[in-house]
Amino acid sequence: MSGNTFGSLFRVTTFGESHGEMIGVVIDGCPAGLEIDTALIQKDLDRRKPGQSKITTQRKESDEVQIVSGVFEGKTTGMPIAALIQNEDQRSKDYAHIAGQFRPSHADYTYDQKYGHRDYRGGGRSSARETAARVIAGAIAKQLLAKSGIKIQAYVSKVGTIEMTQTMSEVDFTLVESTMIRCPELTTAKKMIELIEAVKSKGDTVGGVVSCVVSGCPVGLGEPVFDKLHADLGKAMLSINAVKGFEYGSGFSGVELNGSEHNDLFEEQNGVVTTKTNHSGGIQGGISNGMNIEFRVAFKPVATLMKPQESIDKNGQTVTVEGKGRHDPCVVPRAVPIVEAMAAITLADHLLRNRSARIDE
Amino acid sequence: MSGNTFGSLFRVTTFGESHGEMIGVVIDGCPAGLEIDTALIQKDLDRRKPGQSKITTQRKESDEVQIVSGVFEGKTTGMPIAALIQNEDQRSKDYAHIAGQFRPSHADYTYDQKYGHRDYRGGGRSSARETAARVIAGAIAKQLLAKSGIKIQAYVSKVGTIEMTQTMSEVDFTLVESTMIRCPELTTAKKMIELIEAVKSKGDTVGGVVSCVVSGCPVGLGEPVFDKLHADLGKAMLSINAVKGFEYGSGFSGVELNGSEHNDLFEEQNGVVTTKTNHSGGIQGGISNGMNIEFRVAFKPVATLMKPQESIDKNGQTVTVEGKGRHDPCVVPRAVPIVEAMAAITLADHLLRNRSARIDE
Amino acid sequence: MSGNTFGSLFRVTTFGESHGEMIGVVIDGCPAGLEIDTALIQKDLDRRKPGQSKITTQRKESDEVQIVSGVFEGKTTGMPIAALIQNEDQRSKDYAHIAGQFRPSHADYTYDQKYGHRDYRGGGRSSARETAARVIAGAIAKQLLAKSGIKIQAYVSKVGTIEMTQTMSEVDFTLVESTMIRCPELTTAKKMIELIEAVKSKGDTVGGVVSCVVSGCPVGLGEPVFDKLHADLGKAMLSINAVKGFEYGSGFSGVELNGSEHNDLFEEQNGVVTTKTNHSGGIQGGISNGMNIEFRVAFKPVATLMKPQESIDKNGQTVTVEGKGRHDPCVVPRAVPIVEAMAAITLADHLLRNRSARIDE
Amino acid sequence: MSGNTFGSLFRVTTFGESHGEMIGVVIDGCPAGLEIDTALIQKDLDRRKPGQSKITTQRKESDEVQIVSGVFEGKTTGMPIAALIQNEDQRSKDYAHIAGQFRPSHADYTYDQKYGHRDYRGGGRSSARETAARVIAGAIAKQLLAKSGIKIQAYVSKVGTIEMTQTMSEVDFTLVESTMIRCPELTTAKKMIELIEAVKSKGDTVGGVVSCVVSGCPVGLGEPVFDKLHADLGKAMLSINAVKGFEYGSGFSGVELNGSEHNDLFEEQNGVVTTKTNHSGGIQGGISNGMNIEFRVAFKPVATLMKPQESIDKNGQTVTVEGKGRHDPCVVPRAVPIVEAMAAITLADHLLRNRSARIDE
Repeated sequence: MSGNTFGSLFRVTTFGESHGEMIGVVIDGCPAGLEIDTALIQKDLDRRKPGQSKITTQRKESDEVQIVSGVFEGKTTGMPIAALIQNEDQRSKDYAHIAGQFRPSHADYTYDQKYGHRDYRGGGRSSARETAARVIAGAIAKQLLAKSGIKIQAYVSKVGTIEMTQTMSEVDFTLVESTMIRCPELTTAKKMIELIEAVKSKGDTVGGVVSCVVSGCPVGLGEPVFDKLHADLGKAMLSINAVKGFEYGSGFSGVELNGSEHNDLFEEQNGVVTTKTNHSGGIQGGISNGMNIEFRVAFKPVATLMKPQESIDKNGQTVTVEGKGRHDPCVVPRAVPIVEAMAAITLADHLLRNRSARIDE
Repeated sequence: MSGNTFGSLFRVTTFGESHGEMIGVVIDGCPAGLEIDTALIQKDLDRRKPGQSKITTQRKESDEVQIVSGVFEGKTTGMPIAALIQNEDQRSKDYAHIAGQFRPSHADYTYDQKYGHRDYRGGGRSSARETAARVIAGAIAKQLLAKSGIKIQAYVSKVGTIEMTQTMSEVDFTLVESTMIRCPELTTAKKMIELIEAVKSKGDTVGGVVSCVVSGCPVGLGEPVFDKLHADLGKAMLSINAVKGFEYGSGFSGVELNGSEHNDLFEEQNGVVTTKTNHSGGIQGGISNGMNIEFRVAFKPVATLMKPQESIDKNGQTVTVEGKGRHDPCVVPRAVPIVEAMAAITLADHLLRNRSARIDE
Repeated sequence: MSGNTFGSLFRVTTFGESHGEMIGVVIDGCPAGLEIDTALIQKDLDRRKPGQSKITTQRKESDEVQIVSGVFEGKTTGMPIAALIQNEDQRSKDYAHIAGQFRPSHADYTYDQKYGHRDYRGGGRSSARETAARVIAGAIAKQLLAKSGIKIQAYVSKVGTIEMTQTMSEVDFTLVESTMIRCPELTTAKKMIELIEAVKSKGDTVGGVVSCVVSGCPVGLGEPVFDKLHADLGKAMLSINAVKGFEYGSGFSGVELNGSEHNDLFEEQNGVVTTKTNHSGGIQGGISNGMNIEFRVAFKPVATLMKPQESIDKNGQTVTVEGKGRHDPCVVPRAVPIVEAMAAITLADHLLRNRSARIDE
Repeated sequence: MSGNTFGSLFRVTTFGESHGEMIGVVIDGCPAGLEIDTALIQKDLDRRKPGQSKITTQRKESDEVQIVSGVFEGKTTGMPIAALIQNEDQRSKDYAHIAGQFRPSHADYTYDQKYGHRDYRGGGRSSARETAARVIAGAIAKQLLAKSGIKIQAYVSKVGTIEMTQTMSEVDFTLVESTMIRCPELTTAKKMIELIEAVKSKGDTVGGVVSCVVSGCPVGLGEPVFDKLHADLGKAMLSINAVKGFEYGSGFSGVELNGSEHNDLFEEQNGVVTTKTNHSGGIQGGISNGMNIEFRVAFKPVATLMKPQESIDKNGQTVTVEGKGRHDPCVVPRAVPIVEAMAAITLADHLLRNRSARIDE
């Protein structure tokens, strides 16, 4: 079974290659009667699109969304929603030199071995350009979630070794979009940008972390034992290009604690149950508990460098891969809307799945 | 859609509660003609079973596997394989006191809210007892993988703040089973055991990390763009009770590197392509590249303490939850075969999925 | 992907062979809070079980259902429901002679070729004994459907060339169980029984038709374009052993009509919309329209004869297959609860699927 | 779960409405390395397209296929194949009168009730225009099947009461395309065309039967117990607009036979196993047995008439629905390539599914 569909009830299928005519997405299972605000979709696409600032790739794409199915008189019809984005600024000739070469830490070698041949232009479908299609689906999912009061907000919390000091509960989300790096701690944001510029000037790249908070999530989302909410969120995040790790709540640092420190004690006030701490990251037993869902996603440094690297070609011969093409020195600022999109798709799916949890619903 | 099935072609469905009559598993999609060695299944169950050492829970279960479908004259028939384990040593009365209470950081509250009522005895299905069923499926998956030369080995690399110094490529796997903590670095193992005993004596618990290495994996497993091999491995791991994080290859620490440090340079010798480093953790573009697959899984401290904790009951009243029942002070030694099982199931699934990758296969 | 699971949200997986230790079923996705009446399950099993009358096989099975997961204090918990039936009266030695032979029009040859070997005892998993597991799932589905006022009733409408004269809307369902053939038109029932006895006395078999009516079905079940309600019902029926055809509403005879005769004209009274005729069989555009759902299922004559037949063995040598074992001369009386079960499973699945049709649900 | 995807490994998702901008299809899971002949796709589209003869609707569509993903340098890449067809000759104003009315035996009423509102233009997505997307996928599936020697051929065997006398094994398939009705028995074809013209002149419509033969199918396709090959073929056919019934092999007429007449006796010659008769329709135990697969599909008379009909509107008021729009007097000639397409998709799916049947494959 191929892997181009995500979700069980809110099902997202993407298609298209980096240098093909267009990329697109089909969303099957979005309930009928949802008013679609195309401007909100476009806004998220603009947050992801290339060329938006000096610290992103300079490929120029207008990335305008065109909805061709499933929306009638402004509302979803229950039919599959299909949306397209034309590719405009391909420069396929920039890639002619790698047709027979394998760039280090790219998908060139594995795609070639698995499928026997590959569309090498711009990385074909392994390019992060595919994530624009996810952002469309995510923006529609967000509109569905908003009806249930669920909000998803991500930001850059670390670039290289530069890390925010604020915790996830201290963040002022109104500041996220105020800097090109999308880090809401402004002094740290400045340092991150400086680091990226320094790295870029050397033709090099650097990694980072995107943090994400889901607020307003009702109790009950998640399907044990395999489709625990955090397991599906983890898969969603790990499916994004360049992601190397996922943790939620206390994550990897929680292993150092004792149970008596780590347990989140319940309290109740006016019928509302909360926990005093949130090491659980809003999820207990794989099911949302009503607290904020908090998770972190690790992105490796971009593999494409603007300097020559040693590698091999299809015949196993040693070659020098030139540093050509247009690429991001650090992927995290553009990854913020992608993390949000995949979180939204996952939560929309679980929101619908939860409709079958009880006989009386 | 409920979540008790894992996998696309090698499909594992588990059933049963901690204090029900039995737990079981159905494996649909195991190819016909595979010789099943029941002793190997039992061996993995014994590595997971309670009461195996002084640092695990003292519940006594023989955990004997009984295969009731899908195997004829010692070989799989292509029909669904069903296997059962009887529950023996339930002490349901130990749980009567929590029928109306929500233990902190357990699944009690969320199950109750999602489903309207719950089998509270021993945690019902949210109990880690369910993972015994996964171990059966995993042991069968391992036998399938062995036919393709794939081997999966996990071990405990960290307990609390005590961590191994060896890297994943330096480990001597023959030592894993030589200590009850399943850490192959013996001096570190000793310290881990001491820590767990100290924590246990205070009625407390502690977290840990399980590391896992898959060797012999052919190039080509993984299904972009959503079912990348590491995305499915991540989901598999995150679906295990108490897991809070997953990382592969360079993981969270890789974000601090530059691309020029992080990129794995290819080399070729006698037709065999390898990489000089393995920050990619054996997976590039979501597809295995033939190097060892390496990942780490973070487990939180067990939530059940042997001391009283404050909480609330169904009516929102403050209550004191007593420290009863039999539980592990640290979950990681018993988690080692579970991590291996889920990795094996995931890889078996992708091994079969890869059979459709090319027209000429 | 193997094929032992049916349904999307109400998911039924069966396991077990005719002469194995037991057969069983796992139902994942039954909503929590449904009271389960085990007597109703047993009642349907008794309607299906062998040895119930002189016109069925004389194999003796008590077919007692044992629920081992997913029900607590009489109600479903939202966890997978697992149920088992022990096999008691296997006579595997009756089948030793066909271990290397292929019985005509059985699954022997195709299973052997597909899987390389097979459990030949009693037909293994290709035996209709597997349908007992479906009946359990169907009986639970019926209890779920009853909460929404949906009722499913099947009956034998044809045996050989003997056919009822009443139409589906004229049937008195209270008479179905009054005869061993389960035909509610009593004079016809008598002739059917006589035919079966005559056929049986010659060691031969005969086919028949089961008709089914679903009443009380709300408007809206069915998921165009591929999972139309009748398409899923058709697949459900065609998956039953010995079924050769499916038609709903006007079916094959409808092709002879003109549109002006065939169209069902709407009428409305007190807010209730009905149609004057029901050639649509209760389904329009793949979605239930509130009228009775009516369909017919064709069963071939049982392939096992009580007389010798010519065939071949594994080596392609001509052999004479002896007429041994215990079998039904006509499958339709025992097929009635199986048709109902598969209809119930399909409708339960679509009832849950429909919960996601609209934003405001 | 919505229903716009068909297949497990060869997965087909369609989108688009009758009067939207375009319709399209995504095929995920087509193996890499398959050479795609676009002319063959176009040929099947031309067999389906409107306006091709005097006995089909006069809507004019060029129905040109545009592949936008998944094919590189003429071969499939293993990535999702996406293809589009622009809609050209919509006359949406022809449908303004039914925006608030429910046409008899159409999907208007059920879509409206299920989804709360609907795209009424040209029937929206319930229009048979959607099947053009299936034909694209089917034409690609046929090219995949051809590599394994599998061929699919359908034809019209009955219109109204006019029926072919030749059996399925007597048909000369080279004659199918020689008449506009696609019936290879030429004298019968002539009568069928006369009947359709007579019916059309009265503004009425008539039903028909499409028969289909799959030759060259290897032994082993089909996945018991639920995904039997004929069960999936049945669902595939029943998912086509206007289909009311499906039967394979002896079908409904087989119920009248005795087992001794119906059983297909095996014979073997030079290692090739065949059966003397083919009442099994090429499928035994749900698995192809190497004989021709033969099935029949019943199509009802088209519901749209060119004369006024009584109906109701959204408010339950009686209205007269005018006979407007452009429609087929009989759907079967254009249904032939659709039946072939759905058969091809189903077989391609099972061909890939069968790759996991055995350990040694």
